[in-house]
Amino acid sequence: MTSQESQPPQQNRGRSLDAHLNRYAARTAGMTASEIRALFAVASRPEVVSLAGGMPNLSALPMDSLATEVARLVAEDGQVAFQYGSAQGVPELREQITEVMALEGIRAHPDDVVVTVGSQMALDTVTRIFCDPGDVVLAEAPSYVGALGSFSAYQAEVVHVAMDDDGLIPDALRAALEAVHSAGKRVKFLYTIPNFHNPAGVTMAVERRAEVLEICARHNVLVLEDNPYGLLGFDDQTYPALRSMDEENVVYLGSFSKTFAPGLRVGWALAPHAVREKLVLASESATLCPPTFNQLLVSRYLATHDWQGQVKTYREVYSERRDAMLSALEQYMPPGCTWTKPDGGFYVWLTVPEGVDTKAMLPRAVTQRVAYVSGTAFHGDGFGSRQMRLSFCYPTPERIHEGVRRLGTVLRDELELLATFGNVAQRPQLGSESPSPDTA
Amino acid sequence: MTSQESQPPQQNRGRSLDAHLNRYAARTAGMTASEIRALFAVASRPEVVSLAGGMPNLSALPMDSLATEVARLVAEDGQVAFQYGSAQGVPELREQITEVMALEGIRAHPDDVVVTVGSQMALDTVTRIFCDPGDVVLAEAPSYVGALGSFSAYQAEVVHVAMDDDGLIPDALRAALEAVHSAGKRVKFLYTIPNFHNPAGVTMAVERRAEVLEICARHNVLVLEDNPYGLLGFDDQTYPALRSMDEENVVYLGSFSKTFAPGLRVGWALAPHAVREKLVLASESATLCPPTFNQLLVSRYLATHDWQGQVKTYREVYSERRDAMLSALEQYMPPGCTWTKPDGGFYVWLTVPEGVDTKAMLPRAVTQRVAYVSGTAFHGDGFGSRQMRLSFCYPTPERIHEGVRRLGTVLRDELELLATFGNVAQRPQLGSESPSPDTA
Repeated sequence: MTSQESQPPQQNRGRSLDAHLNRYAARTAGMTASEIRALFAVASRPEVVSLAGGMPNLSALPMDSLATEVARLVAEDGQVAFQYGSAQGVPELREQITEVMALEGIRAHPDDVVVTVGSQMALDTVTRIFCDPGDVVLAEAPSYVGALGSFSAYQAEVVHVAMDDDGLIPDALRAALEAVHSAGKRVKFLYTIPNFHNPAGVTMAVERRAEVLEICARHNVLVLEDNPYGLLGFDDQTYPALRSMDEENVVYLGSFSKTFAPGLRVGWALAPHAVREKLVLASESATLCPPTFNQLLVSRYLATHDWQGQVKTYREVYSERRDAMLSALEQYMPPGCTWTKPDGGFYVWLTVPEGVDTKAMLPRAVTQRVAYVSGTAFHGDGFGSRQMRLSFCYPTPERIHEGVRRLGTVLRDELELLATFGNVAQRPQLGSESPSPDTA
Repeated sequence: MTSQESQPPQQNRGRSLDAHLNRYAARTAGMTASEIRALFAVASRPEVVSLAGGMPNLSALPMDSLATEVARLVAEDGQVAFQYGSAQGVPELREQITEVMALEGIRAHPDDVVVTVGSQMALDTVTRIFCDPGDVVLAEAPSYVGALGSFSAYQAEVVHVAMDDDGLIPDALRAALEAVHSAGKRVKFLYTIPNFHNPAGVTMAVERRAEVLEICARHNVLVLEDNPYGLLGFDDQTYPALRSMDEENVVYLGSFSKTFAPGLRVGWALAPHAVREKLVLASESATLCPPTFNQLLVSRYLATHDWQGQVKTYREVYSERRDAMLSALEQYMPPGCTWTKPDGGFYVWLTVPEGVDTKAMLPRAVTQRVAYVSGTAFHGDGFGSRQMRLSFCYPTPERIHEGVRRLGTVLRDELELLATFGNVAQRPQLGSESPSPDTA
């Protein structure tokens, strides 16, 4: 035994709840459970109408024919399907992915596609290769909560850029770039969801797209285009992808989670060639390779099923639910509320009257058996407390109607309290009326 | 248009091969293709006997019954299997994983298990939550190339610790800890593969295990135990996991890649409770959730198949191949070579005579239609040029015999050249005898 060993340990392991507390990396301090995650337990109770989750509605998937397909995959190609594959992904699937992207005007080579474990992994990997701590990422206000999580995990700073009903506002983008540059900070990329935005439900106007690309190119800022919902336009309309207008300065993210099935976790990134090489290396470090089995199943599904017919079915499913939500909102929302009218995707963005705090109100809503996600979850800067995201993807139209009715009641109660007592959110206790659900 | 916009861009996008070069994060500079990865293209040519890859041999998998099982999963449980799941993984699988770990003496609660996309993702995620740039990770010399890749991706510094035929040497571990502490650096964890080591083929002696744990605990250094091969002992022997001897200071990594199938990418981490919480958050940021489909398939496989019988079959397959390799090495290696005699797993570690550089020799070996991985791939510090990893997992015994025979010829030629001309590796050109394969 050396003399050093007989001395007390250099650091005190302590008796705190987490004995490993002083061992974590700096980035780990920023890892906290998202508001959406904390909601999962509550939202899954059958008596609660959840307008909170983003789970696709899979009731229309042809399970019998998928069962046959997957059995055939194992029997015919099991030795390949169950084996390691390349970090970049199965070549035949990457070829098919270029055909999927062609529907939105993208011309791409399979060599520039990287298959990932859902597009979340693509988001995470892009952030990993580009962002040093303190780098700035521009994102719409509001923005996708999973993206904000990845940006935070790599200690990037998010600067939000305002939207209106036509999506990201070019003048706001210019102003944000100027402000960040003036502060001496480095912007790594603009993260944008141009189509049927999560959570805002709006779509970037076509005439704005070239302008946004031009502003970013001029400021030497990469564009990270996240497009999981692009084929889910209710008027059967698709919009030209930003990537279709700029091959050099856009990294494009796609996913089969909304057009096929999220439980397979198959997404992808399309990147300029040099960036693609870095993405593959980062992906290899993250998972060695995406699951071969899942990639071959998606490939067979695309080849043997009428997958575009299935997407059309999904559009009809979601369109009917969007209609149910919009008509219920008209019927039940108190005066002073406004909301977006999505032409596709999963989400409506609701703004409530001044004084109501959607995050503080959530426990009371859950008591009334309706759940949503507070707008604060979609901001990296604490804003969004007058907003909430309502998702119409999963429940039946009848449940959506009932959920919005309950929400209307909660809001009217809240406004009444507010008129009587002032800002309810500031009151620490309301006695026995104050519930303590899991989400509080 | 603002005045700033009309000015030239702040950074020059340049005309280099990679227009994005000045945009990458600092960590990206360390991302380079591993030597193993570069070998894949060559090793897959049919005329080359590859002793390089680490692909499990899946020929004994019961494909027909798996086809039936997976079809049943889709038909009976498709709505769950194709849907998002929790970031931590499917509860029933986590329960079963605790039963798998019990075979090596581990008592654990399913709450402390995190399912990951292969154990590579667990490795990456553990590194993510613990390592700041410049932190030190201790690892055996040599160590698993995928682990070194993750450590490098998070800018951790690897300090290697010597092994002998009984695995990691406790005195070397003490000396390494002292040296690192003296240098004022912070050690985050010891990364170790105690059983049937990749690439060294050795196993940590049971009597050393408590000592290694005690040294680490005393120095306040976490132990990261990576155990993909633990059930693949050719004498049907298992060893007590480090985790079975220390619940508080060990993070344990397991995998179904070698006991079932790697193409499903299902692995796991078992961690002290507080660390587990951080791992789940980091996993969520990385992929949202592991593929539900794959988890349910593994769960059904464990429940309905004689999975331990299958592991026994795998042991027989690999044991036969290990025998083929060891007898061929006896027969064909020139004097001065030594090698490990693994009791399990996939790999033999070969040391060649002084003066031979295995990395420089590789192109000549491939010309002679045999491939291996140079020992340098398994070191973060440039060592290993007198070693190589030979894998016996995938080829038939006949091919292994032939591969080792060819390797013997290559080595004898190399030694002859060395005796005649001095160090061959230093010679820039050998004229038409010098091949230029993809791996060069």
